[in-house]
Amino acid sequence: MTFRNWWKSALLTMLAVCLVPIWATQVFSQTLAATPPMGWNSWNHFHRTIDDKIVRTQADAMVSSGMRDAGYIYVNIDDTWEGERDAQGNIQTNSKFPDMKALADYVHSKGLKLGIYSSPGAKTCAGYEGSLGHEEQDATTYAAWGIDYLKYDLCGLRTQLKAAPTPEAAHKMMVDAYIKMRDALRKTGRPIVYSLCQYGNDAVWRWGTDVGGNLWHTTGDITDKYDRMAEIGFSQAGLARFAGPGHWNDPDMLEVGNGGMNPEEYRQHMSLWAILAAPLLAGNDLTTMSPETVALLTNREVIAIDRDSLGKQGDRVTAEGPLEIWAKPLSDGSKAVGVFNRHTTALSIPVDFKQLGFKGSVQVRDIWQARDLGTMKDSYTVTVPPHGVVLLRVK
Amino acid sequence: MTFRNWWKSALLTMLAVCLVPIWATQVFSQTLAATPPMGWNSWNHFHRTIDDKIVRTQADAMVSSGMRDAGYIYVNIDDTWEGERDAQGNIQTNSKFPDMKALADYVHSKGLKLGIYSSPGAKTCAGYEGSLGHEEQDATTYAAWGIDYLKYDLCGLRTQLKAAPTPEAAHKMMVDAYIKMRDALRKTGRPIVYSLCQYGNDAVWRWGTDVGGNLWHTTGDITDKYDRMAEIGFSQAGLARFAGPGHWNDPDMLEVGNGGMNPEEYRQHMSLWAILAAPLLAGNDLTTMSPETVALLTNREVIAIDRDSLGKQGDRVTAEGPLEIWAKPLSDGSKAVGVFNRHTTALSIPVDFKQLGFKGSVQVRDIWQARDLGTMKDSYTVTVPPHGVVLLRVK
Repeated sequence: MTFRNWWKSALLTMLAVCLVPIWATQVFSQTLAATPPMGWNSWNHFHRTIDDKIVRTQADAMVSSGMRDAGYIYVNIDDTWEGERDAQGNIQTNSKFPDMKALADYVHSKGLKLGIYSSPGAKTCAGYEGSLGHEEQDATTYAAWGIDYLKYDLCGLRTQLKAAPTPEAAHKMMVDAYIKMRDALRKTGRPIVYSLCQYGNDAVWRWGTDVGGNLWHTTGDITDKYDRMAEIGFSQAGLARFAGPGHWNDPDMLEVGNGGMNPEEYRQHMSLWAILAAPLLAGNDLTTMSPETVALLTNREVIAIDRDSLGKQGDRVTAEGPLEIWAKPLSDGSKAVGVFNRHTTALSIPVDFKQLGFKGSVQVRDIWQARDLGTMKDSYTVTVPPHGVVLLRVK
Repeated sequence: MTFRNWWKSALLTMLAVCLVPIWATQVFSQTLAATPPMGWNSWNHFHRTIDDKIVRTQADAMVSSGMRDAGYIYVNIDDTWEGERDAQGNIQTNSKFPDMKALADYVHSKGLKLGIYSSPGAKTCAGYEGSLGHEEQDATTYAAWGIDYLKYDLCGLRTQLKAAPTPEAAHKMMVDAYIKMRDALRKTGRPIVYSLCQYGNDAVWRWGTDVGGNLWHTTGDITDKYDRMAEIGFSQAGLARFAGPGHWNDPDMLEVGNGGMNPEEYRQHMSLWAILAAPLLAGNDLTTMSPETVALLTNREVIAIDRDSLGKQGDRVTAEGPLEIWAKPLSDGSKAVGVFNRHTTALSIPVDFKQLGFKGSVQVRDIWQARDLGTMKDSYTVTVPPHGVVLLRVK
């Protein structure tokens, strides 16, 4: 090799060393969660009772109910699957999950993916074994099992964060913990969606992408009550600019079908989450769904709004007290428009198309009624049921 | 009298007949509740236990605590004071209130005003005698007692409203009921503040002024919990244009000092209500207030924001998830700016003075810290405690 050729080769090697990680980062962020993840999570309904058998029956129901074909792919096991570590420090499952690899194979055989849960602390929220000091080892184990999604819950690190000498030190500790697991997951080579269960602390939307999050909780936990759902959903305004393909704001899982809200309230919940381009993780028992619940969860046009390829989260356009109009730009130039009524009586409000950025006449479709309303000009007055929504697609 | 003079006189009489009611309406709406009413109401703390003795001790405490001198004037008795009607149909007090006239005299002797409660239905919310069919008679009684404020609670009319054949018929029934009592109150000649306790039904802010309301509840009842306070307060956006001197949006009474929220949360509550130009009706036990509660309720600069003579309700300027910036224009050209954190961890956010409508450099004062922060340009980054607020006055 001449000196010149050596230089050439060295330069190329250096370039490759520099560029490959950048390229890899791009690939990971572009292909993983290019649209908001959809699936199911065990916590909202099954809490600590989740086990291997339930996961299998839920996976079966995901297929038989038509949810898989509507886009729900991830079957996510929340906290309480963890056992002790073995002599080498490898994480084991507890007796509720006799063979995680076999479970993953089963779930994969259904055309679904399997998700799991851990914490950057020594213990998880429910007091099980966390990943602190075992990040690489755990990521390797997850990959070997065939895990496709990790929800990483800050909860277990709370004591340490509180003990930090300054808020800045606590922030750095938290960020470092998330980066550590990001790097561990990437090192496995397996595409594993990385969900920061992080309660919105320190405005996670501002730095969630930097630590490799494909999604991050923007709030505390949802509950199956209208007030809580509305409190979370309607306080997502102004977060749109932080989300996009591969990195999503997550206002927490769905409560649709769990029984604590009426059908109008669940319709509002589902519509708002779609406009927010929120991850759609069902949180109900999929084996006992009413036809109404299936219809709410699998409405193709609503799901199409959520996972529109443009990847733009919607935002509030206007409010008149409990009446709020939100809009989400879609890839075909149309907009999804949600007219939400947070009040306990029916209320009417004109939807002003100019205010929504349209000029001239528009074509309007009522999504939940699955009905084209024809061509309109200026505005369209809708009456929205108590705690309800009118969801339009305007072009 | 010549024919010409007769004509002159007749014309003048006709003019007077036509103009006096218009003039009277103007006077009433201009002088009554020219700024948002301030005072105290019995419901949040005492519920059904309110009686003559408690009202007197609360009135005493309103004076001794300095609240009266800070602007709290109305002492309002909520539901459960009502007795039966006598043979002539005149409403009587029940045994808890042996002599309402004497009580009014006592309250007046303290430099305060007395408020009372009724319903357009046959019964009140708590099942006592309502005003249905006795509106004029009741208004006359109130005036004779020396009542200065009436909270008129839709509650008792609910059954009839539900039985209405159409939503339009129900709406008309409700509106007519409020107009009937408005006219009855006006006929007494006594200035009685008219509060529509109406839960925001049928978007009352759109027609509350038309039925003579000096204030109207825009929402259901507040409770002494942060989530409920925040749900109500932050959903008042977009209602500013419906409020002004003599007619105010009322997001319900204060819970400050009742013990269900921490000091930061109460500070947020008080600040938000001030920016909303909301009526400030304390709902706590005034005889057992901590110095912190007194300081929160009587902060002169906060009260000055609420009852600024311009009478403009504030509105949300921007939101970034749980961080919301609200502003209220004030009569001296300055603006009250509330930076609210609805999250459970401290968060920082820059306040952009240009976005708030200011050009060049501004003078900034931190209201709760009672500290001039000097001259600033462009923006000022504030760190807001969990569920807290930084309240600025910017000029």
